Amino acid sequence: MTPKTSKQNLKHVVIVGGGFGGLRAARRLAKAPVCITLIDRNNYHLFQPLLYQVATAGVSPTDVAYPLRSIFRRQKNLVYQMAEVTRVDLNNRRLETTNGSLDYDYLILAVGGETNYFGLESVAVNAFGLKGLEDASPIRDHLLHLFERAALVNDPLIRQALLTFVVVGGGPTGVEMAGAISELIRLVLTKDFPNQDFSHSRVLLLEATDRLLAAMPAGLGQATQKALKKKGVEVRFGAAVGSFDGRTVNLSGGEAISTHTLIWAAGVRSAALVDTLGLPQAAQRRVRVEPTLQLPGHPEVYVIGDAAYLEDENKAPLPMVAPVAMQQGEHAADNLVQALNEQPQISFHYHDPGTMATIGRNQAVAWIGPLQLHGFLAWVTWLVVHIFQLIGFRNRLLVLINWAWDYFFYDRAVRLISPTEPTFSPQKIEQGQF
Amino acid sequence: MTPKTSKQNLKHVVIVGGGFGGLRAARRLAKAPVCITLIDRNNYHLFQPLLYQVATAGVSPTDVAYPLRSIFRRQKNLVYQMAEVTRVDLNNRRLETTNGSLDYDYLILAVGGETNYFGLESVAVNAFGLKGLEDASPIRDHLLHLFERAALVNDPLIRQALLTFVVVGGGPTGVEMAGAISELIRLVLTKDFPNQDFSHSRVLLLEATDRLLAAMPAGLGQATQKALKKKGVEVRFGAAVGSFDGRTVNLSGGEAISTHTLIWAAGVRSAALVDTLGLPQAAQRRVRVEPTLQLPGHPEVYVIGDAAYLEDENKAPLPMVAPVAMQQGEHAADNLVQALNEQPQISFHYHDPGTMATIGRNQAVAWIGPLQLHGFLAWVTWLVVHIFQLIGFRNRLLVLINWAWDYFFYDRAVRLISPTEPTFSPQKIEQGQF
Repeated sequence: MTPKTSKQNLKHVVIVGGGFGGLRAARRLAKAPVCITLIDRNNYHLFQPLLYQVATAGVSPTDVAYPLRSIFRRQKNLVYQMAEVTRVDLNNRRLETTNGSLDYDYLILAVGGETNYFGLESVAVNAFGLKGLEDASPIRDHLLHLFERAALVNDPLIRQALLTFVVVGGGPTGVEMAGAISELIRLVLTKDFPNQDFSHSRVLLLEATDRLLAAMPAGLGQATQKALKKKGVEVRFGAAVGSFDGRTVNLSGGEAISTHTLIWAAGVRSAALVDTLGLPQAAQRRVRVEPTLQLPGHPEVYVIGDAAYLEDENKAPLPMVAPVAMQQGEHAADNLVQALNEQPQISFHYHDPGTMATIGRNQAVAWIGPLQLHGFLAWVTWLVVHIFQLIGFRNRLLVLINWAWDYFFYDRAVRLISPTEPTFSPQKIEQGQF
Repeated sequence: MTPKTSKQNLKHVVIVGGGFGGLRAARRLAKAPVCITLIDRNNYHLFQPLLYQVATAGVSPTDVAYPLRSIFRRQKNLVYQMAEVTRVDLNNRRLETTNGSLDYDYLILAVGGETNYFGLESVAVNAFGLKGLEDASPIRDHLLHLFERAALVNDPLIRQALLTFVVVGGGPTGVEMAGAISELIRLVLTKDFPNQDFSHSRVLLLEATDRLLAAMPAGLGQATQKALKKKGVEVRFGAAVGSFDGRTVNLSGGEAISTHTLIWAAGVRSAALVDTLGLPQAAQRRVRVEPTLQLPGHPEVYVIGDAAYLEDENKAPLPMVAPVAMQQGEHAADNLVQALNEQPQISFHYHDPGTMATIGRNQAVAWIGPLQLHGFLAWVTWLVVHIFQLIGFRNRLLVLINWAWDYFFYDRAVRLISPTEPTFSPQKIEQGQF
């Protein structure tokens, strides 16, 4: 199966994945003399940096997901196909997908990452990840449900377990998630449940090492820790999770924490599709690529973003973050055009635009070149940057309204529990059957 | 289990259902010397009149659903409980719920309606209803999925079946749904799929009688029919559905229509809970109530809205519509206060505020007292009325932005396919396995 545009004898470029990397690559090729097929199993591009806000009822799923067909409406040389790629056949330059097979002349693999549970089976089964909408909406439903449950239970131990929330991983996602849950409870739900005492609810942030935001300067990690503490988050260092059966988190040190909520933000790895390449991988399943982003031995294949392993000038692996994926997407597109024109391939160099993490209302940390910001100014910076990165004027406007409302009225927009969730019974809670 | 406030020796009023009727009753009792428990299985009040817009990607689920705890934050004499009532024990004045039992002194049953398939089992299993969010979001996913599927299929018969959409029922919901699907296709999806020819897609509106909007004057029904035709909807009269297996709709007359989409807007009935009352019912499972809205023999129980059967001055049953439920909610609350004060009960009289239905962009019909409007003016009226009825300033603002955007850019906001939906394969489509 080949798209209609390929009849013009143009080279067929297939881009797998409509995330940050795939999107940039596709746009950069808008004027190239190629026909492009972009494949994604979802019909939307997801703005992952705000996923934790979906999970904590701050914004609606539709505010952070934008239809791929909308994005590419005006790009004449591209067709979008909703499908999942199941295998890459490098030798025959062919993909197997849930829609049948698809031949390519050039391939850009931008398959992104998935949650990495490091082989902890019980955690993989019972914890929440935070990589897609399929994670975030269930977390929202789950959190709100637990408070409805807690309101009906008198046993203090059961109540305590219902109101204990454990986030694992002291990177930006874990920090943002822990801060957002704590604010959801203290600023919003205490008002929603005026007859309930939630003062004993706990939000724990577990980090296996001895610092937060390890990618940032130590001072910002300390500022983050202080800000989280002020927001009521208990930060625990040297805390490695051993198992979670849905009711108890067991730490490697022997401690057990009764909770129904474990949110795992402690690791990512490349999506499983790269295993079908049969090529050498680095840590986190990432495929080793040439400095030109090409696959060794397959110059017609570019791998970018979370799925690609490349080191910077200091021999440190490039991080699995959106700016790397975006810059590599454009670079792979440029190299592809170079190849079309029989020009030499160019090595990729990452330009770090800085990193940020928000800790909640009025609090963030940012590291931009020589600048280290924390507090209100960093928070405003974070807000502006994220609003402007959101695709589509409408999405920006709606998210801005939601945020302004939350900010001024200490409210959350999206406190819906999806109607498919089964109703629960306190008897079952007492008996531990839920 | 009784709420904390009942310790003050106040009468305990239980309101079952947070729809239009229950909400009005609860608010009307805000200053009454009672303690109120409002029970609903969902944690939100649903603005049902815009549900068809959720189903056709016009607005987000969160735009039409508002958390009940938010609504009642400031009402000190009310606690909300998320639970499903499974039985009413009239003799012991007790409810059985998924949270255990709950005693009442006064009961207001505002359980609302559900889709009525009139015993057509195959339709109940394979068609979509349109009463809750659990109906609307799956319709949106389904519709958008079918277009993604059709884009991958060449067989003209299979394509035709994928692109045929059947709506049953010529009341306001059916009219609105058929118009909205047609506009979604013609104004939005044709732009999303620039390489696809969707001109042979069909939207059918089947009505068993010989007219649309039977509750309105005949002239408005004819205007509606004309407007739908202009929008590409095929209206079929005297068309009664016999069965639907998910692939073929069989009409009673013998005709078969190949389609994967049947949306049933042809009937409602009271929610099943009223069966547990063991009392005489009228058509559509509605419970016969006194003119005071009390249950015969149980003056402490009021039944309102879709669940109640009462006739107007002309011996015609009051319709199952939101204005009846809202007026009855306030009336039941007032009668309850009369009872508390040992004053006589007052009979309910319905004041018809008029009815409206929108047929899509720039087109609606409205019947308000002596006024019969159709076309643009009716559409603007419809827009203003519905915007102002939406609960919460934020919801109003967000919906208005979505609508303005759709209107000026011929776009739809919410074209997301939920990520839980399984991906599909054209092989399966060809083999009829999906």
